Amino acid sequence: MMDCVFCKIRDGQIPSVKIYDDERTFVIMDINPLNEGHLLVIPKAHAPTVYEIADDDLGRTAVVAKRIALALQAALRPEGLNILQANGAAAFQSVPHLHLHLIPRWNGDGKGFDWKLTKGDPEKIRAAGEKIRAAL
Amino acid sequence: MMDCVFCKIRDGQIPSVKIYDDERTFVIMDINPLNEGHLLVIPKAHAPTVYEIADDDLGRTAVVAKRIALALQAALRPEGLNILQANGAAAFQSVPHLHLHLIPRWNGDGKGFDWKLTKGDPEKIRAAGEKIRAAL
Repeated sequence: MMDCVFCKIRDGQIPSVKIYDDERTFVIMDINPLNEGHLLVIPKAHAPTVYEIADDDLGRTAVVAKRIALALQAALRPEGLNILQANGAAAFQSVPHLHLHLIPRWNGDGKGFDWKLTKGDPEKIRAAGEKIRAAL
Repeated sequence: MMDCVFCKIRDGQIPSVKIYDDERTFVIMDINPLNEGHLLVIPKAHAPTVYEIADDDLGRTAVVAKRIALALQAALRPEGLNILQANGAAAFQSVPHLHLHLIPRWNGDGKGFDWKLTKGDPEKIRAAGEKIRAAL
């Protein structure tokens, strides 16, 4: 797509630190890393979010992410790894071309989701589940 | 696996709010939701993390996540959606059976990754990328 940063990186119009490239997928280092080794797994076909991506591209992207995760694990030995995908500005998506963040984690790095485990109201959970099930 | 909570939920030994079930995958509401509609997409085959899961199970799980994301979007109309997968306690994985969190997001909900975009040192980024590429 004309004004898409990731399409331009894919096409070599914007430089990147590329670490993997195949017919359908490419992988670059994030230039704003949350931690050392933070990288992005990106399908070559432009799709803004998970809602639009072709099933086949999505499955392939996930499998490439696994392969890259194994290399990342072997290379940098992080203590954990988050794989994060964001859809929409409210979810902190900055480039509207689907991508998976692979974010190496170390104990106490303070970089995670803002996650305070709190038990939800069972009735509200059931009601939300019912609405989603009805939309399937 | 004997002591795995998600295997027990899969097998009906622990109750859950299940919203989807097929041969290879099931989907339940998270009982500690970060936001309304927070749910988990789970492959039936036990694999602790992304490092161990079979490619086929991983691809299938991702495609089911897309289908559920579309239903979630239609049902609850969130303003954004994060898909998050955690490997290891350092990455905030609590159940060692691979699962994808689908976390609906609304503007200003304050529930995201602790994400302050900071430009990284290009040389360090290049060096990390080189190590990962070498491990592929």
